[in-house]
Amino acid sequence: MKTWNVAVLGATGAVGQQMLKVLSERNIPLGTVKALASASSAGKKVYCGEREIIVEETREDSFKNMDFVLGAVSNAMAQKFRPAIVKSGAVFIDNSSAFRLDADVPLVIPQINGEDAFKHNGVIANPNCSTIVTLMAISGIARIAVIQEMVACTYQAVSGAGREGIVELETQMRQEYNGEEKTHSVFPCQILSNAIPFIGSELDNDYTTEEMKMQNEGRKIMHLPELKVCCTCVRIPVIRSHSISVQLKLDKDVSLDDVKSAIKNAPGCVLAEDIDGRDYPTPLDVSDQDLVYVGRVRRDLINGDRGVCLWCCGDQIRKGAATNAVEILELLIK
Amino acid sequence: MKTWNVAVLGATGAVGQQMLKVLSERNIPLGTVKALASASSAGKKVYCGEREIIVEETREDSFKNMDFVLGAVSNAMAQKFRPAIVKSGAVFIDNSSAFRLDADVPLVIPQINGEDAFKHNGVIANPNCSTIVTLMAISGIARIAVIQEMVACTYQAVSGAGREGIVELETQMRQEYNGEEKTHSVFPCQILSNAIPFIGSELDNDYTTEEMKMQNEGRKIMHLPELKVCCTCVRIPVIRSHSISVQLKLDKDVSLDDVKSAIKNAPGCVLAEDIDGRDYPTPLDVSDQDLVYVGRVRRDLINGDRGVCLWCCGDQIRKGAATNAVEILELLIK
Repeated sequence: MKTWNVAVLGATGAVGQQMLKVLSERNIPLGTVKALASASSAGKKVYCGEREIIVEETREDSFKNMDFVLGAVSNAMAQKFRPAIVKSGAVFIDNSSAFRLDADVPLVIPQINGEDAFKHNGVIANPNCSTIVTLMAISGIARIAVIQEMVACTYQAVSGAGREGIVELETQMRQEYNGEEKTHSVFPCQILSNAIPFIGSELDNDYTTEEMKMQNEGRKIMHLPELKVCCTCVRIPVIRSHSISVQLKLDKDVSLDDVKSAIKNAPGCVLAEDIDGRDYPTPLDVSDQDLVYVGRVRRDLINGDRGVCLWCCGDQIRKGAATNAVEILELLIK
Repeated sequence: MKTWNVAVLGATGAVGQQMLKVLSERNIPLGTVKALASASSAGKKVYCGEREIIVEETREDSFKNMDFVLGAVSNAMAQKFRPAIVKSGAVFIDNSSAFRLDADVPLVIPQINGEDAFKHNGVIANPNCSTIVTLMAISGIARIAVIQEMVACTYQAVSGAGREGIVELETQMRQEYNGEEKTHSVFPCQILSNAIPFIGSELDNDYTTEEMKMQNEGRKIMHLPELKVCCTCVRIPVIRSHSISVQLKLDKDVSLDDVKSAIKNAPGCVLAEDIDGRDYPTPLDVSDQDLVYVGRVRRDLINGDRGVCLWCCGDQIRKGAATNAVEILELLIK
C-alpha cells in the first residue's frame, strides 16, 4: 500500500502539535512523519497519535523524500524554507499568511473550493483562522444566493497568538488569583477580563492586517472578487475557539427556512438546535471539534429579506488551522 | 441652602451601591439619603461617601419627603413602587426597563437629550447600559449628520447581570484555579473563557430583548424614529465595562477628520489617542470612569464616505447605569 511521508514544520507550536494529532486521527496511510522545528527545540519529543517523534532542527535537506510538508511557522520561516520544500518535490501546505494572496498559490477550504487545491505549483495556503470559521458558517448560504456584503465582528481566542497566547492568559489568571500584578508580552495589554480590538498591525486604511484577511481571503476562496467585507477583529479571554457575529447582504430575497436548510446541508457545518437546551453555540461548546457551529440565525433588520444575521463558533487550532491543512492533504491523496 | 432628599431603591445591588457612591462624589447638596432594599437586606450598612447608611426595608411610605428616588431594582419592583413614589411627590429616576418606552416617560441621556427630562410626569427612565455607551460614542457624529443605520455587536461585562453576575465569574475563576467543576446559575452556561451570544429573552423576530433595546431606545433618545439598528448582544468574561463595535450609515458624506472632531467635541466622550501607547480603549481602561472612550474610527468598507466604523467602551455600572441616573438628577436641580 502506498504510504505518505509527511513533515510538520513548526511541530512544537500549538498548531504544529495539533497537525500531528489530526494526522493520527484520520485514515491516512502514513509513512515517515517528521517533526521539524528550530534548533532550540531539537531533541524534544512530540506525538502523532501513539508515535513518539523526536523533533529535528529544520535544514534545507530536511524535506527529502517527503510527500507533504505542513507548515505552522511564521511568514519569515515559511518564506525561508519554501524553495527547499518545492525543490524536494513535496507539496507545501502552509498555514502562514505569506503566500495566501499570491496568484499562483491556491487558498483552500476543502468544503468550499477544494477543486482549487489541484491547481497548485508546489504550495497551497491554509486561510486565516477567523476567515475559515466565518466562511464555513456562510458556505451553505453562498450556494443559494450571491453574498454581496458582510459585516463581521470577531470574538477571537488567545490561541490565535499560538501557545504563547494561551500561556499568557493562563499566567494572568494565576496572577489574578494570587493578587500579583499582571504581566504581558504577547498581547498589547492585559487580556484577562478584557477585550482588545486590535490584532496584527495597522494598515493605511486604518484596518488591521487581521481584519483585511476576511475580505481579501474571502474573495479568493469564495470566487467573489466584488465581495465587500467590513470587519472588526477583537481578542477576548477565550482559550481556543473563535466566534464571529456576521451580517450578510445577499443578491436576492431568501427565506430564513431556506437559509437554515442551507446551513444544515453545508459540509462541516452544524446548525445549533439543542446544545444543553440552547439553540446557539459558544466557543467552549465547539472546542476540540472540527465542525463549525452556527446559531442566532435571523433576519437582518436593515436589509430585510436580502439580509441574514448569524453567530458562529469554531475551534481555532483545529478547523481554523490544523484540521483544514490536513483536509487539504487528504483531498490531494484521494 | 436648599438640600435634596434622595432615596436609592435597591441600594444593596451593584448599581444601587454605585448610585450612592456617585451621589457622594458630585457637588449635590444632599439632605436625607435613604437606602431602601428588600426585607432580607434591612439592617445592612451601605455607604454614600463617608455617610454610613442603614438599609431599610422598602414600604409604601418609604418615599415620604423624598425629592428623588433612584431606582435600581427589577421591572416588577419598579412597577410595584411607582404609584407610591409618584404619590409622594418624589421624581422617580428608574434604571429598570419597565417604563422606558412609555410615551409619558422621558428616556434620557443628559449629554444627548437632556431637555426631554423636563417633560416628566414623575418618572424618568434611565436607558439600557449598552445603549447608553453606544449612543454616547456616536452622539457627536449625530450632530454633524443624520444616522440612518447602525450595526452594533456588543462585548458585554458580567456586571450587566448585577452583583450576582460578577460573583458568578469570580467563582468560576476560583473553581478553574482549584480544578473544580464550574457551576452556573446566573448565565445560561459557563462564562469564564467563553462568550454567550444571548442576553435577556427571545422575541418573535428572533432577536433578544437586549438587542432590540438598542434600536427602540436609540430611536427615542436620539429623536430618530426611522433609525434602523441591527444588534447582536454578547456576554464576555469582563467584569464591569461594556464594549461595542459599531458601523454607521449616515445621510451624507462626512470626512473622517470631521468624525473625529465631532467625537472629541461630544460631552462625556473621549477620542482615545494615547492610552499607554494605544489609540483604542479596552474595557479595563475605562473601568470605574464616567467617560465613554472611542477608538478604531475608520471608513466603513461597505458604505464608503457615508459609512463610519468605531469601537467604544464605557463602564457599565457607572455611565451605563448609576452615573447617568445621577446626572439626570443633577439636570433637574440645576
